[in-house]
Amino acid sequence: MKIAIFAGDGIGPEVTAQARHVLETLALPGLTLFEGDVGAAAYRRHGHPLPPETLEMARAADAVLFGAVGDFSCDDLPRALRPEQAILGLRSELGLFANLRPAAGFPGLEHLSSLKPDVARSIDLLVVRELNGDVYFGDKGERDSTGGREGWDAMSYNEAEVRRIAHTGFRAAMGRGKRLTSVDKANVLETSRIWRETVIEVAKDYPEVELEHMYVDNAAMQLVKSPGQFDTIVTGNLFGDILSDQASACVGSIGLLASASLGERQTGYGTFGLYEPIHGSAPDIAGQGKANPVAAVLSLAMLLRHSLGREEDATRIERAVEAILADGVFGGDLGGDASTQEIGDAIVRKIV
Amino acid sequence: MKIAIFAGDGIGPEVTAQARHVLETLALPGLTLFEGDVGAAAYRRHGHPLPPETLEMARAADAVLFGAVGDFSCDDLPRALRPEQAILGLRSELGLFANLRPAAGFPGLEHLSSLKPDVARSIDLLVVRELNGDVYFGDKGERDSTGGREGWDAMSYNEAEVRRIAHTGFRAAMGRGKRLTSVDKANVLETSRIWRETVIEVAKDYPEVELEHMYVDNAAMQLVKSPGQFDTIVTGNLFGDILSDQASACVGSIGLLASASLGERQTGYGTFGLYEPIHGSAPDIAGQGKANPVAAVLSLAMLLRHSLGREEDATRIERAVEAILADGVFGGDLGGDASTQEIGDAIVRKIV
Ligand SMILES: CC(C)[C@H](C(=O)O)[C@@H](O)C(=O)O
Ligand SMILES: CC(C)[C@H](C(=O)O)[C@@H](O)C(=O)O
Repeated sequence: MKIAIFAGDGIGPEVTAQARHVLETLALPGLTLFEGDVGAAAYRRHGHPLPPETLEMARAADAVLFGAVGDFSCDDLPRALRPEQAILGLRSELGLFANLRPAAGFPGLEHLSSLKPDVARSIDLLVVRELNGDVYFGDKGERDSTGGREGWDAMSYNEAEVRRIAHTGFRAAMGRGKRLTSVDKANVLETSRIWRETVIEVAKDYPEVELEHMYVDNAAMQLVKSPGQFDTIVTGNLFGDILSDQASACVGSIGLLASASLGERQTGYGTFGLYEPIHGSAPDIAGQGKANPVAAVLSLAMLLRHSLGREEDATRIERAVEAILADGVFGGDLGGDASTQEIGDAIVRKIV
Repeated sequence: MKIAIFAGDGIGPEVTAQARHVLETLALPGLTLFEGDVGAAAYRRHGHPLPPETLEMARAADAVLFGAVGDFSCDDLPRALRPEQAILGLRSELGLFANLRPAAGFPGLEHLSSLKPDVARSIDLLVVRELNGDVYFGDKGERDSTGGREGWDAMSYNEAEVRRIAHTGFRAAMGRGKRLTSVDKANVLETSRIWRETVIEVAKDYPEVELEHMYVDNAAMQLVKSPGQFDTIVTGNLFGDILSDQASACVGSIGLLASASLGERQTGYGTFGLYEPIHGSAPDIAGQGKANPVAAVLSLAMLLRHSLGREEDATRIERAVEAILADGVFGGDLGGDASTQEIGDAIVRKIV
């Protein structure tokens, strides 16, 4: 089993170090770890945010544990060299088409949400976001127009792309509350019309799942008004970007939320994937030992579950995290004063 | 002065009737009212959701008071004949490029929000949404691809389009807290790159306004986490659709929120515009006298202010609405049992 660790920028290295610590504590037999450069760190060393050797390392691995990328120093670089190209490049080059973002409150931490405690407590949803298509990866550019310079981006989805992510959505719903909300803007977009028609087709394979369609503006409204109504949401790349961040904010403690980006390749132990915290590189607190490593540790748990087929180890980690939160081991983001290292150590102690 | 009233579908006619009642109470000299068909009602009578006579009536008017469109009976019609084409058609045919959507809590009604009362109370923002461009009005269609049928939509903005709405945003910010947040996705979209560069250009004309740029995913997050941080938001058609609905939901009482869609044409009294409640046609409660007419009445206030230059009358209406809310005249949406007519009458009594 091979795991590539791409710690990246800002607080990425700090939080990833704790996840690595937890991983090593599990002492999995036959596991090899590799470390690669991504983001601003990679740009500084290799002149590119996603150097070829990093990409090769990812291809050779069964899973990638990703920290975070992004750095103010890169704000003036052309887009192709900016840190976020590392994550966009990995998604497209590795065919990571399915982003799974669970958003659920941690019992006792509802007060961290800006939502009323009972509303925050009701949240237990999964956003399944398509990651390889949409206006992200279509043709784009600048052209002249009668109104001066014009920026343009082509948005599209074809049936095969929608079918693939719809199956992921329905399968995820089957493993949860058997309710799937497909989010689109079919009253305006042709892309959404094909999306909706294809989702309806795929639904025939999952008669047990209750399917509903919702326009994206209404979804954004409902996610605030009564987020507890959602079980599983499936949507395109752009709407998923917005709604999954909104859902995380509803939970309130984004330092605790993890995500998985899965491809089609099977590893022998599970599905190849990349795992990363929802939070970004937070350059303002980087290097101060203040970052909360829980999201990175929970990303590791998702990695063990989905890519390495080690459900038991994943659960062990998740239980350990629940235990330290119940003990009140909180970082600054949760109103406590535990350091990154202290939180990591606390999790490790619960595991051993 | 000519006002065209397009009541539309569902609860549109009920709430618009109360706004009309309020308008007639003001007894403005030299005012003529016209009524036109839009939406499903227009489709049933004329075979089109936006018949030519309706469009002509709008063009001849100084302002349009719009109710709501949408009806389950039209779900299976081809998109071009569906009710929402009425509002999209009016926006593009009349050049209504600037959508103003204020979102602010009503004192004493914070409990209606799913946000904590202090967070809800902090909301006082204006979303300025571009309405004539973006992926809404670009080329679109269906084509064959190796992945089967493919739906596509072209997203774009040129400098002239962005400049125009940016000026609206900066001017609005000047009349408010002098802080403008421009929302885009410049880390992924070329459309957003031109958007951002142009907004930065326009900013030079408004040295007093503090300009900030925010990615749309972060904006969706911040709108939940701490909506009080926003003063004025300016953004494109698609992001504006999502964020303005999210902002309305944060306030909690969308039956109270109004909007204006302004064009470039000057009417002699102000700027030509279309005014409508945020809420939709709510077919489930239509015809039962349960709908809250406050948003329609407040849309009328915006109409008087922006298109007819009657600031005093606008303020009179707004004060009357505040007064009935302070008196506890609440419809079902606010936890009371006042009917549409009773709420309208109560507002009228406060005005006389
Ligand atoms: C950094 C950015 C390009 C990226 C995206 O938009 O997908 C991020 O927001 C995310 O959701 O992972
Ligand atoms: C009905 C629909 C086309 C419309 C839009 O997307 O603009 C609506 O959601 C709105 O915001 O007025």
